This record gives sequence, C-alpha cells and structure tokens, in this order.
Amino acid sequence: MSARLPFRTIAEAGEELRAKRISAVELTKISLKAAADEQPRTNAFLAMMEEQALADATRCDAELARGESPSPLHGIPVAVKDVFSTKGTKTTVGSKIFANHVPDHDAAVVERLRAAGAIIIGKTHMQEFAYGITCNNPHFGPVRNPHDVSRIPGGSSGGSGAAVAAGVVLMAMGSDTGGSIRIPASFCGTSGLKPTTGRVSRYGVLPLDFTLDHMGPLAPTPHDCALSLQVLAGYDPRDESSSRAPVDRYAPPAEPSLAGFRIGIPTSFYYEGLQPSIARALESLQNKAEALGARLVPVDVGDIAAINAIGRVILLSEASAALEPYLHRRADFGADVLALLDQGRLLPATDYVNAQRLRRIHMTKFEAVWEKVDCLLTATTPTTAPKIGQAMIDILGKSEDVRLASTRLVRGFNVLGLPALSIPSGLDGEALPMGAQIVGRRFNEKTVLAVGQALLS
Amino acid sequence: MSARLPFRTIAEAGEELRAKRISAVELTKISLKAAADEQPRTNAFLAMMEEQALADATRCDAELARGESPSPLHGIPVAVKDVFSTKGTKTTVGSKIFANHVPDHDAAVVERLRAAGAIIIGKTHMQEFAYGITCNNPHFGPVRNPHDVSRIPGGSSGGSGAAVAAGVVLMAMGSDTGGSIRIPASFCGTSGLKPTTGRVSRYGVLPLDFTLDHMGPLAPTPHDCALSLQVLAGYDPRDESSSRAPVDRYAPPAEPSLAGFRIGIPTSFYYEGLQPSIARALESLQNKAEALGARLVPVDVGDIAAINAIGRVILLSEASAALEPYLHRRADFGADVLALLDQGRLLPATDYVNAQRLRRIHMTKFEAVWEKVDCLLTATTPTTAPKIGQAMIDILGKSEDVRLASTRLVRGFNVLGLPALSIPSGLDGEALPMGAQIVGRRFNEKTVLAVGQALLS
Repeated sequence: MSARLPFRTIAEAGEELRAKRISAVELTKISLKAAADEQPRTNAFLAMMEEQALADATRCDAELARGESPSPLHGIPVAVKDVFSTKGTKTTVGSKIFANHVPDHDAAVVERLRAAGAIIIGKTHMQEFAYGITCNNPHFGPVRNPHDVSRIPGGSSGGSGAAVAAGVVLMAMGSDTGGSIRIPASFCGTSGLKPTTGRVSRYGVLPLDFTLDHMGPLAPTPHDCALSLQVLAGYDPRDESSSRAPVDRYAPPAEPSLAGFRIGIPTSFYYEGLQPSIARALESLQNKAEALGARLVPVDVGDIAAINAIGRVILLSEASAALEPYLHRRADFGADVLALLDQGRLLPATDYVNAQRLRRIHMTKFEAVWEKVDCLLTATTPTTAPKIGQAMIDILGKSEDVRLASTRLVRGFNVLGLPALSIPSGLDGEALPMGAQIVGRRFNEKTVLAVGQALLS
Repeated sequence: MSARLPFRTIAEAGEELRAKRISAVELTKISLKAAADEQPRTNAFLAMMEEQALADATRCDAELARGESPSPLHGIPVAVKDVFSTKGTKTTVGSKIFANHVPDHDAAVVERLRAAGAIIIGKTHMQEFAYGITCNNPHFGPVRNPHDVSRIPGGSSGGSGAAVAAGVVLMAMGSDTGGSIRIPASFCGTSGLKPTTGRVSRYGVLPLDFTLDHMGPLAPTPHDCALSLQVLAGYDPRDESSSRAPVDRYAPPAEPSLAGFRIGIPTSFYYEGLQPSIARALESLQNKAEALGARLVPVDVGDIAAINAIGRVILLSEASAALEPYLHRRADFGADVLALLDQGRLLPATDYVNAQRLRRIHMTKFEAVWEKVDCLLTATTPTTAPKIGQAMIDILGKSEDVRLASTRLVRGFNVLGLPALSIPSGLDGEALPMGAQIVGRRFNEKTVLAVGQALLS
C-alpha cells in the first residue's frame, strides 16, 4: 500500500498544523512520498516541485512558530494541473508541443495559493490541451483511476482527481471547460467545484475556450472546496472575465441542516439515461436532503440538449482558434484532439455568433429556475469510470459515445456560467465512485457548497 | 425655401417653451410642416407620427402650463431612425422585408424620449438594415444631402443627419455600428455622438451587430447631444450590454475654456489621406484648442488599420448571423447588402473568435492613450459627401472605395467601444460640411462633449 496523507480534510490538517502536532515540512514530505509511491500506479503527476515545496513548507513552519497562519490552506500540500503556468517549472499543458516549456511567470492561481501558504508539490497530469475527458494522453501516457487502474480517472483534470482520491494532496486545482473538474471528481470519488464564470482568475492558463474555461479546486469535501475558494477567488484585471463580486464566507453549521432550502429536481433531461446504481444513489441523496429539512421541488430547466449543442459549437470554434498557432505541427497532436481541432475549423462564423446569441437567451431564461429553487440536484456523470481506451459505453441498453455521455450532465453549466459542484455519492457494486452535481445561482457558491457538505454529513 | 424650426438649439427652444413664448404644439406643427416641405427634396423620412406627436405636444403644453418641465427635451421636436421599434408605427429598418412591419412595443430609446416629453414627429430614412453608409436605399429611394441633393447624406443614419441639418428637428436618433451616426453628422454638418458601449439601451432595435451597435443622437451642437444623452442613458436589463455606469451631467462653462485639457493628436493613421480642406479645418481646430488653453499632445494610438480589419471581420460575421433568418428572401435585398451578407457567411468561426480576442487585446493596449491625453482630435471622414451612386473617391490622387474611405477614421471606436463625437468643422470650397471627431475614455462622454462644445464656440 502506498503512503497517504494522515488527514482526510484540509480543515483537519490545518488544525493539526496550528496545534503543532505536525509540521508543514513533515506533511509536505509525506505528500511528496505518497506522490512518488502512487506515480507508477496512477501516473497522476507530470512534474514534481520538491525543492520549492520544501522551502515553502520551511517558511510556513517559521510562520506557524510565530503563531501566524494567514489562510486555511497555510501549510497544506496541494497540486496544480499542468495547465497552470509555474515559474521555473515545466508546464506542458499535456502537449508534446509544450513538452519543454518553462514559463517565466506564475499563473494567478499559483500566485494566490503560494501567497496563502499552500504548499504546491507538483503539476498534475491531464488530457492533451485539456481537450477531452479520458486523460488517455498519447504523449505522457494515460492517467489511471486510483479505484481501478484499468479505468480512466475522467478529465481533463484527471491527474488532479487521482492525486486527491489517492490521498496524495488535500486539494488539486483543475480547469473545467465542459466538465473537466466535475467529471474526474465523479469518477475518482472526490468533491470538485466549477465556480461561477469570473470567480477565479484564468491568468497564466493557456486558454482552451475564452468563454467556457473555469478554474477550480478538487478536494476531499465541499468544505475543503470552500476553504480553497476563499483563497482562489477575487478580481484580477489580467483576466477580462474576472468579476469583482464579493466571495461569501462559507462556514459549515454546527449541526448539518438543510432547513429552508428548496432543492430543484429537474423534470427533464437530468434524470434520464442514468446507470441504475447512480439513479439509486441520487434517490438516497434526495431522501437525505428531505431528512435534513430541505424541500424537493420539481423544476423545468428548459432545453438542456440545445444548451449542450451551443456549448459544443462554441468549444469547437474557440479551441480551434486558440490552438491555431500550433496547428501546423500536426504530427505533434494526438489523433483525438487533432480531429476536434480540424472539425472546429470547418464551422462558419455565423454558427458561432448564433451560438453565443442563443447562449445569452438561455442564460436569461434560466434565471426563472432560481425563482423556484435555491439549487439543482443532478448526477454528475451518468456512469462510473469507463475503461481506458473504451470509446462507447452501454447505459440502459443504449450505446453512447463515452465523451458525450460523460459531458452531457455537466457541459450546460459552463455555457450558463453557473457554479456547479460534484460530490461523491457513494460506490457502486463494482466499488467504483459515483458523483452527484449541485448547481446554483450566479456567484452563489455558498449555497452549492453548504448543500453539498450537508448531503455528505 | 422650406420651413425650418425657428430655433437653432435644444437649449434655445427649451427656454422659449418654458417662457411660454411658443407652445409645444406650435413647435411640433412647424416641425411637421418642415418635414413635409423637405421630404421631396431630401427624402429624410420613412413615416410621420403626426397624430401621436400632436397628442404628446398637447400633453406637454398642459404640463408647461402647470410649470412642469421634467427634462431638457420636454416639448422638443425630435425624430428617430427607422431602426427603432415604434408601437403602432411602421418600422421598416430600411428593408423591403419589414416594409409593412408594425411593432407592438416601443424601443427603450423611444420609451425614454416620450417619458421625457420629447415629441417624436417621425421615423427617419436609413440604409437598408443599417448596413452601409450611402443611404442609397433600393427599396425606398436615396436619402439626399440637404447641402447638395446630388450627394449622399452619409449613413446609415442619413435621414437623421438630413432632418437635423435641414432644421426639421432638433435631435434625431441614429445607430452606429461602424460610423453610422458620425458619418452622416460629418457629411450633413451636424453634431453626432456615438456613446460608450452599454451607455444607451439597444432594446427594441433589430441588431445588425451584437457587439458593435451603439445608439446615439445627432443634433445641432455637442451641448444638444449632451442634453439628449441625459435622457437616453441608463441601465436597461433588457439589453445585456447595458451598463450601470453613472451619467456625468455636462454643463457648458460660462466662458468657453479648455484650460488643463490635454488633446491627443494621433501620430499615425488619422492625419493621413485627408482631403486638404479637411486637414486645414483640423488645423484650425487645433489652433482654436490651443487658444482656449488646451495642450496638444502627439500620441501613439497603435495599429488602427488592424483594429479596422478586426471590426470588419466581426461585422461581416455578426450581420450575416443576425440577418440569416431573412436570407432565403434573396430578391428582397439590395445588391450591396446581399453581397456583404454572402461574404460574411464564408468567414470561418476561428477568424471571428480571433478577431474578438485581438479586439480585447487592443482594448487593453489602448488604455495607455488615456494616461497621456484626455481626448483625441481627428477628422470624422477624410472627404466631404460623395455623389449619390459614386463608388470610388479620389483623395490626394489616390482612388479609394467610398465605403472604406468613409468608415476608416470612425470604425475603430466601435471596436474599442469608446465614446466618439463628430462636430462640424466648417464648409469646404464647395460649401459642403466637414467633420471633426473627438474621442474619449470609456464612459467619459462628458469630456468629449465639453471639448466639442468649446471648439464650436
């Protein structure tokens, strides 16, 4: 058995650090050891940052010795997806083209984490250019699911999901353009938050899609995501989508309660075509929510299939534009990503413009949902993790493309820009993790996280 | 000679109305008579709103009798371009397709004008779908320049320019996607303001371009534009680009002065390729500015040709998307507009996405200009009004496409979203009006209008 961190949550580790029952350096060493032990099994990391991590941890310990602990992530071992630029450390974006790329600056997320005293131990493995959900990377090998190494961890932030699920770090940053935080959270059995558009700066991240990309944490619990969000969120003039909306402080109540919460159960789309174990897990969560005092409210969420189609048109167009400067190096792309990029180049501008126009209409329409409910409860993925290399998956006797199936419940909230959290909803008969999704109103991560935390209580 | 309004400015007419030396009904009747007299000559109107105008004027007079005058436009005869929806009055958008279209609601601009007591006497003629600058409309005949009826008034808001220049109304609303307010202001010798993006609601206007369209006034003086802006500006949730930025109240100083103003003189692009009389008029304005205490500051404005190219890619794409629902009725389009729409359909989505990306980069870069100067002074159009039907124009021995020449000094500020004012800069040797452009920082219409008003003093 590999080494694991001795604490299950950021809050728990933070308490132990502040009580000086463990030092940040000790914790960092365990984390680095766990990463090394796990690497042959899950391939979750593309680069380690041992030297900087130990120096940062030494500084943390000095601060702790002076009674200083500036943030909930102070001294906590974390990792960042290899999409985030790290000054002096290779940042491949999962691509052969960037295999030897060493940025001269830190991404905003990296700056904020380090300023808060988080210890970044390394860069997590990912889908090539974050464009896909399998993490079956042709250049650096597949990432493997710690629950079953024959299966994908989901993606594109698969290394982050695997590293958190394997107990290597207590938080790993992901990016989510069409589900890339929530899908690995679901397949690996962690929590994962895609915040509201504009909440977390994208500065220092090679864009996949200028209007769908979101940065957010994968962590053991919603509360850990909340503690991370407090460090990550905030206005950044270097990202033109960045918002000045204030971040509500989330504190878990002494007794878990959902009294007064109206939890929306979509009357279409979201409860269709689910693997039976996942449907049953959702039902349990609904019962739990009611037991905690919430009211379940059936709610019309409109034409989600149309919103998904809008998302695909926008992503195909924007990704092809974003990666156009590299497209002359065709041999350096994986076949799956290249096919998507070629497809995007064939779309007419009018389709893209119409997609963005329809998106605005759907965004406005969707506001009506929040008059009736405080959040939505759905599954995150309709299945558990598929096998590595598996292209099609059977759901209720219907064969679906793995990529379309895995993204169909999550992509819409990138289009709508709403905060969406995946929480683990248990293990199925094969001991594979299942995930549930909680979605809220713009900039209301607080409700989403509170409901998620209560449902896991 | 046709009838003309007996007052030269909104301020002057407002004083007479409040002093009860003329009634709103009398003023409205003069305006309607002037419109009817001018119509055979300039073809500036597509529909009159006599009945509603006289009813509104009667209400105004009752309010004036009670000492009420809720706005500077109270009782003032105005017109709106036929792009603005008017409940119960035909709104053609200059198109055969909408020849019999009677909206069931008012545009936000129409609502605001009527709520402020402005008397809308009719709908001004325009380029088909506002897509072009000649106002040589194949369905409803050309609009003619009141200074020389063999010449275009500019466009697309040509009827508005002609109606103000002919003394028919004291303000006429235009829309400006690539110069469509400022070009007719320049060719007709009026003032015309394209406000900052988000300043004036676009609700109730058939979009030509979702990200370049701006609504604004053409009026005799910058001060009249300022009085109009106070009525027009304000947040509207029905337009997703609408801003909550406060509107600075502009009051002309007792003595015209530009003491302390830094007026930027672009070191490239804007002072090249101008008709000599227009270059001389600009020089006079520069001297005037210095005499009034301003400092002229040479300033690098970056690659405006690139910004214009970005604007054309965005407009071609968006217009083709916006008008796609009507494109099956090919015979109902004019040849010029149809050619542009067909061209737009051939653009790939990646070009559009890249254009929007480069636009954001140029917007950020352009901020540096405002560290050095308070506004820019340029020409509005490099020539005076071309002849109706003229396709090419000679400037300094070089033959240029009339559309490209007329838009090249103005289009960039639609891309950048900056407030831009055209003021009359005199008449050339053929007694044709010339225009100068003053451009300011985002939401700083106040400076632009103050400088414009001072330069006309």
